[in-house]
Amino acid sequence: MITRKGKYTIQFSDEVKITGYGAVVSKKEFEGPLGKEFDKVLHDPKAGQPTWEQAESMFQQEALSVALSKARCKAEEIDYIFAGDLLNQCISSSFGLKAFSIPYLGQYGACSTMAQNLIMGAITLESGAARRCAAVTSSHFCSAERQYRFPLEYGGQRPPSAQWTVTGSGCCILSKEATHNHPAISAVTVGRITDLGVTDANNMGAAMAPAAASTLADFFKDTGTTPEDYDKIFTGDLGQIGSSILCELLAKEGFKLNHKHRDCGLLIYDRSTQDVHAGGSGCGCAASVLCGHILPRIMKRELKNILFVATGALMSPTSCQQGLSIPCIAHLVHISIP
Amino acid sequence: MITRKGKYTIQFSDEVKITGYGAVVSKKEFEGPLGKEFDKVLHDPKAGQPTWEQAESMFQQEALSVALSKARCKAEEIDYIFAGDLLNQCISSSFGLKAFSIPYLGQYGACSTMAQNLIMGAITLESGAARRCAAVTSSHFCSAERQYRFPLEYGGQRPPSAQWTVTGSGCCILSKEATHNHPAISAVTVGRITDLGVTDANNMGAAMAPAAASTLADFFKDTGTTPEDYDKIFTGDLGQIGSSILCELLAKEGFKLNHKHRDCGLLIYDRSTQDVHAGGSGCGCAASVLCGHILPRIMKRELKNILFVATGALMSPTSCQQGLSIPCIAHLVHISIP
Repeated sequence: MITRKGKYTIQFSDEVKITGYGAVVSKKEFEGPLGKEFDKVLHDPKAGQPTWEQAESMFQQEALSVALSKARCKAEEIDYIFAGDLLNQCISSSFGLKAFSIPYLGQYGACSTMAQNLIMGAITLESGAARRCAAVTSSHFCSAERQYRFPLEYGGQRPPSAQWTVTGSGCCILSKEATHNHPAISAVTVGRITDLGVTDANNMGAAMAPAAASTLADFFKDTGTTPEDYDKIFTGDLGQIGSSILCELLAKEGFKLNHKHRDCGLLIYDRSTQDVHAGGSGCGCAASVLCGHILPRIMKRELKNILFVATGALMSPTSCQQGLSIPCIAHLVHISIP
Repeated sequence: MITRKGKYTIQFSDEVKITGYGAVVSKKEFEGPLGKEFDKVLHDPKAGQPTWEQAESMFQQEALSVALSKARCKAEEIDYIFAGDLLNQCISSSFGLKAFSIPYLGQYGACSTMAQNLIMGAITLESGAARRCAAVTSSHFCSAERQYRFPLEYGGQRPPSAQWTVTGSGCCILSKEATHNHPAISAVTVGRITDLGVTDANNMGAAMAPAAASTLADFFKDTGTTPEDYDKIFTGDLGQIGSSILCELLAKEGFKLNHKHRDCGLLIYDRSTQDVHAGGSGCGCAASVLCGHILPRIMKRELKNILFVATGALMSPTSCQQGLSIPCIAHLVHISIP
């Protein structure tokens, strides 16, 4: 059952479980601090495909296959798949998932997509419309660079505030099975679009931090909780700059995040040796860290009560070239285990 | 309450109502056969904005405002807005709707977006997560041409199979109010991605028809009904070529659609005088015809029981340039009134 709590939060009666999850990454992510935690590594970033876009599709296919196998179910047992990515018209999802023949609902939340997919899946399960849903997303450094910035061959310089798009994918299988052995989605807060006027597309962390602060503040106020009530609070890909801004903004609202906060974009790479500037980014960043690092630790009860807040920048190269600011969003998922 | 029916269909216990709807179009659509039925016409396709993309955002804003006013509710009473469009990263939705400050869930289903938004809204209402949702989408001839085809100034020639992107937007407000005076969402079928190998991006109708046929056949089989059980069956934007193919494909499955079938892309323009080749297309086509033409006729009880099947082509210019085929999808919404 769903109960509305405060203005923006809904709580679930502990029945929507994450019964399977898969994280598939490429070489650079494998060489990072979480390398051994991912389920599968495709060392060739082209994954044997003729184009970067088709390669990205392969990462989604692999992540879905791993998640299905861990959830011990077949593709035909999934009622709906919620998927999306960063590419124009979300082609890595549509091309990557078409062969599975699962009823498909494309989502677009930029780098917040994984949280949005989990929210849509949880709501759909609670409504009775589905027995099992899948949530999948991906990003790829090479497809993202040429679409959002420059062709790789150009060798564009990256300012220190820039982030490195993760090549990888994460997938969760959600179901309403009555088991205490799987992480449950306990509550979610859907974000509102926040735009404080940042126009620098090489500083996404700064653009997205206010959205994360707004959604977290909404959630704390709605539930009457504070950061201290959670084992950890994971943001998606704010990176170094966005993370500091988030902590500052929330402190002003009276919520001290600091020692509880981790950012998937800072966890996935070693900034001192991997030349990723402000950290990792992309839909695949939050998704692969959730599925490769966070959920396994919840299963082991090293973490029992966490917030997963993925942020997205909803601009396009066209809107940036037209001089517009960057509208951002953050969606929050409260995940717990007894 | 939601009941699963057959393999792909879910039925609603007649509680999700469309309590408000708005259709806003531009000059060419106003000059078409349905011209006087739309709520508002922005004769200037730039809507006073500096760019086509920002103009498209204005159409969404206007459609949402009309729908809210007909539903007699305020933006702050909407719990979630489901929105999406054809532009890269769906910027007409994110920029158009940010000022409303409504929790935002971006959807991407290409021209099937309106049906997908209605489905997500109906499921969310039934789950208890929301009391009111909005579903909005748009398209714009000029922003679509330059993104998918050529800059307008180039004057690219269009083959006879091409369709004309509708400049317009449609918005529905959904709620669970107990009234018999509003159209109800009675059932929905979420489509699976269908790809029969069509690679001609100037013949979207042919690419999308198999998806519409597949979803309609799923629905008829799941519910044990036939086209005869409905007053009309509206497809989104198959145009002239896609419509014939759809009827042929369904006939092979044993369902005779012909005299029940209407296509929004054929209704909105007069093909003999408006030079639109195979008909209208775009997210705004199905959405504006639904909100301007179909729903008002349901309110007047001229139609009491219809199927709305919006189709989408999930390719991008990049995937087409890479020689890939066009994956398509169709989502179905059964709308009725007592």
